Amino acid sequence: MAKPIGADKKRTVRNLDEAFGAELTEVRTRRRWSQQQLAETSGYDESYIRQLERGTKSATLRTLSNLASAISLPVSVLIKRAETRLRKGSRE
Amino acid sequence: MAKPIGADKKRTVRNLDEAFGAELTEVRTRRRWSQQQLAETSGYDESYIRQLERGTKSATLRTLSNLASAISLPVSVLIKRAETRLRKGSRE
Repeated sequence: MAKPIGADKKRTVRNLDEAFGAELTEVRTRRRWSQQQLAETSGYDESYIRQLERGTKSATLRTLSNLASAISLPVSVLIKRAETRLRKGSRE
Repeated sequence: MAKPIGADKKRTVRNLDEAFGAELTEVRTRRRWSQQQLAETSGYDESYIRQLERGTKSATLRTLSNLASAISLPVSVLIKRAETRLRKGSRE
């Protein structure tokens, strides 16, 4: 069975990429956007969005900037929240 | 004649990469570190540091994280300052 979107929420985060990915998933699912919708709005491939949310790809500042525009939040806010997640060590 | 380090200070910043680069230059020069010292401390090539400071390369979150560790500042603080620079449109 396919994993529901956001099912990785409780996995621990081990680095800033994973923490950012968890934050991106949370912002997206709160808005009830699919990964496809985020991909279309930000101009990236859905598979790339998936890798970013899992933390298996490290986004460049340029990508962060484009994603932040798509979700109307400053990059610094997303990163600050990701740092908080990383300190707590949890995706929640 | 060679341009002194930090000589680009007054150039305008057009995107977050350039704004981050300007911020990195400022933090580094305030500490009286050369680009070589920052390179050695962060584990990157000096030429890469130079490209980041000029904003011609877009750092990944992983790189930002390593640079932030090297200069003992959170990534979110550096990005927030870069966003402020970008809003003002100036490297100063």
